[in-house]
Amino acid sequence: MAVIDLNCDLGEGFGAWVMGDDVALLDVVTSANVACGFHAGDPQIMLATCRLAAEREVAIGAHVAYPDLRGFGRRPVPTTPDELFADVVYQLGALQAAAHAAGARVGYVKPHGALYNVAVRDAAQADAVAAAVAAVDQGLAVLALPGSQLLRAASDHRLVPVSETYADRAFQPDGTLVPRSQPGSVLHDVDEIAARVVRIATEGLVTAIDGTDIEIDARSVCVHGDTPGAASIAARVRHRLATAGVELRAFV
Amino acid sequence: MAVIDLNCDLGEGFGAWVMGDDVALLDVVTSANVACGFHAGDPQIMLATCRLAAEREVAIGAHVAYPDLRGFGRRPVPTTPDELFADVVYQLGALQAAAHAAGARVGYVKPHGALYNVAVRDAAQADAVAAAVAAVDQGLAVLALPGSQLLRAASDHRLVPVSETYADRAFQPDGTLVPRSQPGSVLHDVDEIAARVVRIATEGLVTAIDGTDIEIDARSVCVHGDTPGAASIAARVRHRLATAGVELRAFV
Amino acid sequence: MAVIDLNCDLGEGFGAWVMGDDVALLDVVTSANVACGFHAGDPQIMLATCRLAAEREVAIGAHVAYPDLRGFGRRPVPTTPDELFADVVYQLGALQAAAHAAGARVGYVKPHGALYNVAVRDAAQADAVAAAVAAVDQGLAVLALPGSQLLRAASDHRLVPVSETYADRAFQPDGTLVPRSQPGSVLHDVDEIAARVVRIATEGLVTAIDGTDIEIDARSVCVHGDTPGAASIAARVRHRLATAGVELRAFV
Amino acid sequence: MAVIDLNCDLGEGFGAWVMGDDVALLDVVTSANVACGFHAGDPQIMLATCRLAAEREVAIGAHVAYPDLRGFGRRPVPTTPDELFADVVYQLGALQAAAHAAGARVGYVKPHGALYNVAVRDAAQADAVAAAVAAVDQGLAVLALPGSQLLRAASDHRLVPVSETYADRAFQPDGTLVPRSQPGSVLHDVDEIAARVVRIATEGLVTAIDGTDIEIDARSVCVHGDTPGAASIAARVRHRLATAGVELRAFV
Repeated sequence: MAVIDLNCDLGEGFGAWVMGDDVALLDVVTSANVACGFHAGDPQIMLATCRLAAEREVAIGAHVAYPDLRGFGRRPVPTTPDELFADVVYQLGALQAAAHAAGARVGYVKPHGALYNVAVRDAAQADAVAAAVAAVDQGLAVLALPGSQLLRAASDHRLVPVSETYADRAFQPDGTLVPRSQPGSVLHDVDEIAARVVRIATEGLVTAIDGTDIEIDARSVCVHGDTPGAASIAARVRHRLATAGVELRAFV
Repeated sequence: MAVIDLNCDLGEGFGAWVMGDDVALLDVVTSANVACGFHAGDPQIMLATCRLAAEREVAIGAHVAYPDLRGFGRRPVPTTPDELFADVVYQLGALQAAAHAAGARVGYVKPHGALYNVAVRDAAQADAVAAAVAAVDQGLAVLALPGSQLLRAASDHRLVPVSETYADRAFQPDGTLVPRSQPGSVLHDVDEIAARVVRIATEGLVTAIDGTDIEIDARSVCVHGDTPGAASIAARVRHRLATAGVELRAFV
Repeated sequence: MAVIDLNCDLGEGFGAWVMGDDVALLDVVTSANVACGFHAGDPQIMLATCRLAAEREVAIGAHVAYPDLRGFGRRPVPTTPDELFADVVYQLGALQAAAHAAGARVGYVKPHGALYNVAVRDAAQADAVAAAVAAVDQGLAVLALPGSQLLRAASDHRLVPVSETYADRAFQPDGTLVPRSQPGSVLHDVDEIAARVVRIATEGLVTAIDGTDIEIDARSVCVHGDTPGAASIAARVRHRLATAGVELRAFV
Repeated sequence: MAVIDLNCDLGEGFGAWVMGDDVALLDVVTSANVACGFHAGDPQIMLATCRLAAEREVAIGAHVAYPDLRGFGRRPVPTTPDELFADVVYQLGALQAAAHAAGARVGYVKPHGALYNVAVRDAAQADAVAAAVAAVDQGLAVLALPGSQLLRAASDHRLVPVSETYADRAFQPDGTLVPRSQPGSVLHDVDEIAARVVRIATEGLVTAIDGTDIEIDARSVCVHGDTPGAASIAARVRHRLATAGVELRAFV
């Protein structure tokens, strides 16, 4: 029987500011990438998000980021490996304590925004992230794109590498994402998105932008939380997966 | 044989800014109150301080504070118990991870600055701190003034309450500190300071500002780290304690 | 002919986070209280808000606050008069430059949130605000509640004091606001709110919570920007004022 | 008669943290590059530095930076031209108000750290800085290296471009600085430093690292404020300039 995880960025408010509909999304996804205060999230929001996730038995991941509240973690702030190591330790520890206080635990780490993109291709930054995770908890998983430097580094540090893909992004024939700057890079049709996720989960295949079928290795699929209609798109994906007999289950 | 602990605030730089001579002080004290990023300290400084402490087998405590870098944690930022609970969880978890990455562990929590003063007398704030510590790690100690709301709250939450006193502060006949606004509140003579600490450790007595002897219950003595000559004062205290046959040992 | 100003808090997003519908509100109000980065607003948002206001010939005011992004300026951070003086100078100058770059100018200052409430009754904090405004630009107006320490201080520093009132708040017979903690303190009926504003503008009277009519001295009325339906409430108030022949005009 | 200006970075503390000996340096230099809160400096420090400068009739410049307190502005935070424009407007306006409150005025702008280095060679970032300065005050000067994109942009925006050089840095035969990564890049001998500055001021010549004499166009010389002995080095330079009959005078 096919198994897949749905992950989503959550807890991305700050103080009085809100981002996305966390409660609705937590009723749909199986893994929550929880912001740790560097790009979004404050200690109260982190704790509340962990509690909501714990109530629903949604897995909790540390959504670590470059320190950049104003840029929402989307700017690749130049960071030395030593700085990055320390920053990941800090964020991961803070979320571990929040999860523990909520009666749960952090199961994995997924970098956010610019750090995610950098860790795909930059071996030194990827190593710093993986080394920090391993220094804090050797039993954690790391969630990232297949073929990324980060999954390679996770393996090097004896962490559990987990591949993910995106529900609403178009692929090039080589399996990489079509850059957002190109037309057709993001899918908007809910049924098309849901059908793709089902096929990824059941067949491990997706149709690339040139029409060819390519293999996709993904134990988890990321659904967006901050776009209009995010929760209803995610719910549709979940419903279609259930109808197709795919088991929804976190990877940790 | 008499036993005492010397604790000191450490890791209080931020980025390029330095505060105190951490290396010299870590060669003297037995417990390090490590800043957690809210009043001072950044993730790299926290990690470096934990590594220096671990090398010297100095105990590590979380020096949690109100969020106030610019005010160095000296301003009692109005904080609800829920906010404070979350903020303590966050800071404590961040330091636990740094300590773990340094091959050590956090043994206790001591509030900093305004939060320390508020938690002496404000039951709700003291409860929030102790509840947060207990929610993260039931085995931790809490370091504070004897008779404070915080030590009472620590007991209520089944944490280990540990009494401390100050090496260079004058006492009123009722055992409370002479307020800093009054003349004679702070001692400056190194030999007098050292002699007082020895007497506290060996006899449990100190001479109050009116000349009467009073009982002081203290398992730990706080030496300052950010005053001129701080490290040499601390070293003199340590030497005098050793000469008097007092064992210097952390309480965790 | 009766004249009134409508003012509203604007530019209260931060980075990727949004607060309120600034464009819709700027089409309705005559004065914009623009956040200056301490409780909300970042330099880009400040500049964009000034440009939108300038295009519509809406007056620009500096919405100065205690430094507290996470608390949205709602916490009375303990601040000495010297700190507060410097903080107001900083925020006001930053907004003056943004307004100038947008082809406009700052015409007044109105404190935000906790600073507003403190400056009603605390003479020293009110003096620090007014002294800072006078030190930067002697020609500015200060917008606050009638009878407040802040308007008194504004007069003392030869600034232009301007009285405002609130469109949707109930009054006690002595002319002060009914505290938010009491039932009936906030009005929700749009027509009732609009009718009250018309009466304040035309007769200078409002019906207090006990049914008696009281005099209200207000050259400006504050409409909220961050409540649901804020823009449509404000638009209704504006329409009713126009229908009643009241001229809508900024006070600077 | 030869004329030169000495400029120095000042006001680079933050809250309780100190950086350099501002008072001693303000007795020596003729222009103060005052931090504006983005890499260092808080509103109180900015105001205090402006007051100290005003008392000594030292010219005040806005030392604008990328937003990066923890990195002290040394990291080139990726910033779009629109963000940078807004950030420069904000910082410059905040310092203008502080200077005005101190009875003085801002005369020039000099970028700090990473922004300085980027604005040497990146035309778009240099244009954003110059456009922001021009949008706030068309009468300001811009201080930077000769041949830099920033001085070119300052001219384009009809600002006053002013060339500076460094007192303690070695030059390559083409007039550019020897990178800090190379041996001999920084001079440490006080007399050699002083002699070089005198020759730059009187002859417009300096001996490059290969022994050849090269022309240096500099109306101002930057002396460092945060290195050990900074104030005494600066004082020696000033004394030697006076002895050589060079007039020390700000360029604004």
